[in-house]
Amino acid sequence: MRRWNGWGDSANDYPLKPAGVAFLQQALGPGRPLPDASLESVLARVPASRLAPHPLIDTDAETRLRHARGQSLGDWLAMRSGDFRVFPDGVAFPENSEQVRVLLDWCQAEGVRLIPYGGGTSVAGHINPPAGEQPVLTLSLAKMNRLMALDEDSRLATFGAGTPGPEVERQLAERGYRLGHYPQSWELSTLGGWVASRSSGQQSLAYGRIEQLFAGGRVETPRGTLELPTIPASSAGPDLRELVMGSEGRLGVITEVKVRVSAAPRDEQFHVAFMPDWPSAVALARRLVQERVPLSMVRVSNPEETRTQLTLAGHERLVAALHRYLAWRGQPLDGKCMVTFGVTGDRRHCRHALTEARRYLRAAGGVTTGRALGRKWQEARFRSPYLRHGLWEQGYAVDTLETCVDWARVPQTVAAIEQALRDQAGEGERAHVFTHLSHLYAQGSSIYTTYVFRCSDDYETTRQRWWAMKRAASDAIVEHGGTISHQHGVGRDHAPWLEHEKGAQGLAALRGLFTHFDPQGRLNPGCLLED
Amino acid sequence: MRRWNGWGDSANDYPLKPAGVAFLQQALGPGRPLPDASLESVLARVPASRLAPHPLIDTDAETRLRHARGQSLGDWLAMRSGDFRVFPDGVAFPENSEQVRVLLDWCQAEGVRLIPYGGGTSVAGHINPPAGEQPVLTLSLAKMNRLMALDEDSRLATFGAGTPGPEVERQLAERGYRLGHYPQSWELSTLGGWVASRSSGQQSLAYGRIEQLFAGGRVETPRGTLELPTIPASSAGPDLRELVMGSEGRLGVITEVKVRVSAAPRDEQFHVAFMPDWPSAVALARRLVQERVPLSMVRVSNPEETRTQLTLAGHERLVAALHRYLAWRGQPLDGKCMVTFGVTGDRRHCRHALTEARRYLRAAGGVTTGRALGRKWQEARFRSPYLRHGLWEQGYAVDTLETCVDWARVPQTVAAIEQALRDQAGEGERAHVFTHLSHLYAQGSSIYTTYVFRCSDDYETTRQRWWAMKRAASDAIVEHGGTISHQHGVGRDHAPWLEHEKGAQGLAALRGLFTHFDPQGRLNPGCLLED
Repeated sequence: MRRWNGWGDSANDYPLKPAGVAFLQQALGPGRPLPDASLESVLARVPASRLAPHPLIDTDAETRLRHARGQSLGDWLAMRSGDFRVFPDGVAFPENSEQVRVLLDWCQAEGVRLIPYGGGTSVAGHINPPAGEQPVLTLSLAKMNRLMALDEDSRLATFGAGTPGPEVERQLAERGYRLGHYPQSWELSTLGGWVASRSSGQQSLAYGRIEQLFAGGRVETPRGTLELPTIPASSAGPDLRELVMGSEGRLGVITEVKVRVSAAPRDEQFHVAFMPDWPSAVALARRLVQERVPLSMVRVSNPEETRTQLTLAGHERLVAALHRYLAWRGQPLDGKCMVTFGVTGDRRHCRHALTEARRYLRAAGGVTTGRALGRKWQEARFRSPYLRHGLWEQGYAVDTLETCVDWARVPQTVAAIEQALRDQAGEGERAHVFTHLSHLYAQGSSIYTTYVFRCSDDYETTRQRWWAMKRAASDAIVEHGGTISHQHGVGRDHAPWLEHEKGAQGLAALRGLFTHFDPQGRLNPGCLLED
Repeated sequence: MRRWNGWGDSANDYPLKPAGVAFLQQALGPGRPLPDASLESVLARVPASRLAPHPLIDTDAETRLRHARGQSLGDWLAMRSGDFRVFPDGVAFPENSEQVRVLLDWCQAEGVRLIPYGGGTSVAGHINPPAGEQPVLTLSLAKMNRLMALDEDSRLATFGAGTPGPEVERQLAERGYRLGHYPQSWELSTLGGWVASRSSGQQSLAYGRIEQLFAGGRVETPRGTLELPTIPASSAGPDLRELVMGSEGRLGVITEVKVRVSAAPRDEQFHVAFMPDWPSAVALARRLVQERVPLSMVRVSNPEETRTQLTLAGHERLVAALHRYLAWRGQPLDGKCMVTFGVTGDRRHCRHALTEARRYLRAAGGVTTGRALGRKWQEARFRSPYLRHGLWEQGYAVDTLETCVDWARVPQTVAAIEQALRDQAGEGERAHVFTHLSHLYAQGSSIYTTYVFRCSDDYETTRQRWWAMKRAASDAIVEHGGTISHQHGVGRDHAPWLEHEKGAQGLAALRGLFTHFDPQGRLNPGCLLED
């Protein structure tokens, strides 16, 4: 069963290995485990619903509790401490667009706020019900999870918006296709959520971001139904899909999503190589993408991430062998950077792409190591969100943040983000910070930074230290011209930084757009744009 | 000097060859040349300007005449007959964003309508001044035509929005880069115009549409300056660039454009092959793009276009040799379809891409013919707009239209468009109609149809027959789920069909957006959205 206060299914458990615990104790000092609240104690704190009865709405306390929080570190601390603060007044599970329409109209008539809910995996506060006098209905798309149509000529699949990643791929694979959108939240996050938050997946280099995959669909808005027809490309005015992507529930509920699918690949491989240092690794990444080497993913870890990953993974014999090999090839062990890359397609394509990648790697002083580490990456590719559990049990907290900047700004931005996090770890505390580049573009790169820190003696101090670090890193991001989010969206947590990137004119235009579709302001208030 | 009543520089002249004239006479009957108005006679019809004097505004009659019309067939008939109807009251040539700001504010204060003007190459009535009591200022970006900045790390170039295609590429080539955006209007059309109308170029398969190239810039709107920062990718809410692209002057004046550039390619080749019939040619095109064969352009001509191109090109010996070769290879000569394709990149890439393309061609029953015809295509790639002159001298008119549909709809849509044009040629008249697919997408393809018809005895009847054909083809396009424009934009001519694709909700949202930026409705009224 899905955890009520953490990530994933409770059957999946990945405790930290002893070498990992020792590594963190050395880096941060001994952990300080905080006590977890019990489900019963939290259930007792769920207030009575303020909603009038409705046949499509469930007001059961546990259902409401299980839809009250996402997966930000702030949400985690709330769930673990039991201090949820606000619960939705009810949860609806419509089975089709018509029922969504009914619920939306009902919310308008009854003065109820509505929060669209996909997989509940937001790490930015998208689905957290706001406090206030108006009752809040959370609308889960969980029952709209089927492949509704497949146009094989045009490679277009229509899904219910609540279809989670594994169900998308399972239903497509049966017919020989793949969507290829693999965010780290893939096990739980949904197509509709990906569209609403402009998501990006690990293999965006081959398959594109959700922007390239989302071909059309249906959105129920307070003003009426917005149908987005499928047209491969058009010069007929601004593209309405672009208004829906990233709208984060502010203009309507996405109910059906049409996506561009590909043939299931005949071959796919992931490889790992090592570069001698960070500047040469960044230069290699830029060169691979600007020279259009047709890879399906590239991830370049900085030295601290490389060291941390190799230690936490716990493959001690494999890593020892790797180090012997790198030493034999004359690669420095300190400061080395891991480069994980993938090729996807038919065999001829993969062979060509691998040859090209190796050519650039060699020319830049890199050492390739074959497929063993690549296979390990592939096995563990969706396991990162579980890491929080293993750390938590040892008394540590972990969070991640990401941005995207032009190549000219990458090195300084990485340094500034990491420094901001370290500086704000708190009196007498340290943060263990590491970074990778992934989602490469010819223009620049995403920057994905992880920070681990030791809990304080109580939840509130821990939360305040987390927020001080996140705030300082967010300030550093916008000061360096980065987006406040490359793949997680804005939600409530990132909204204060949005104006840096959109400008006052841009924010006003977005506000006008949302008011056009939702004149009463019932939809997900405070999300994306601060109220 | 640039022609005042036609396409391009008057030094460029491509009269129809005798074989072409004979071909058309057989297809359509003898041409009926219509008399051209003289520049003097039209100048005499330019009324006095209604604008108050302003140091940045030119009210000279010839300047106003030369900015009154674009390049649609309707514009052509107006220019050739001398019946321009409406002229702008003045033309301004600002040299920087600050002067654009001054002019925009002045128009607001004085109650003047403003039409942004790039290269004046619109084929949909974008820049035609509307009749009415309010005076009209045309704002030409012609003096804002320089490369202002180049970030080589991030491969970003900043240009004045009025920079025309050849100037873009010349200034980039000096530094080793290429934009790679080559619409047929390339000789005259501008970066700002490409953004405002969501343009696409011949090599969009490699370089992307303007959507993929436009990285940010500056827009002066009545509400203030909208700065679009460069961020490679973002999940932070709807992308403001997407509101600007396709806005067709309705929300502001684009003054600076930042574009993503590529290294100048080390190798580039264009090749021609032939497929035995139209269904197999369409299937090949779909397969090439869905299997991701890395070509930089593909154009698939239907049998009528193939026959027409080979005849009009006038390379009689080359074509005779081609026919002998195709016969020897067992290819049928009737019904054959020409496939023009290109590879662009370094030598290894081009070799790989060519090998792959030939493999798919052979498997589908195609015959490759080497580079001779590909070189001819390359030499003449921007010559199509001049064709109207050669035909006109012989008493024929020509127009083109385009759409884009999902692959499942391609064959029926082509047939319906062609049939609509033939059916509406007029009593006792015929239309010579042919089509190609270019701008391929995994989801579908653009459809580009050319129609040639004989002029009537007078301009007005000719115009009415043209509009009857265009209207019927536009109806056929939207009935088949196509966009009313894949690359030319909406302007005034296509506006009646826009609601089919945007829906009432979508149109209302766009109208709200434009009203937000331009509350007085001074900017390009009637363009994109009907008033």
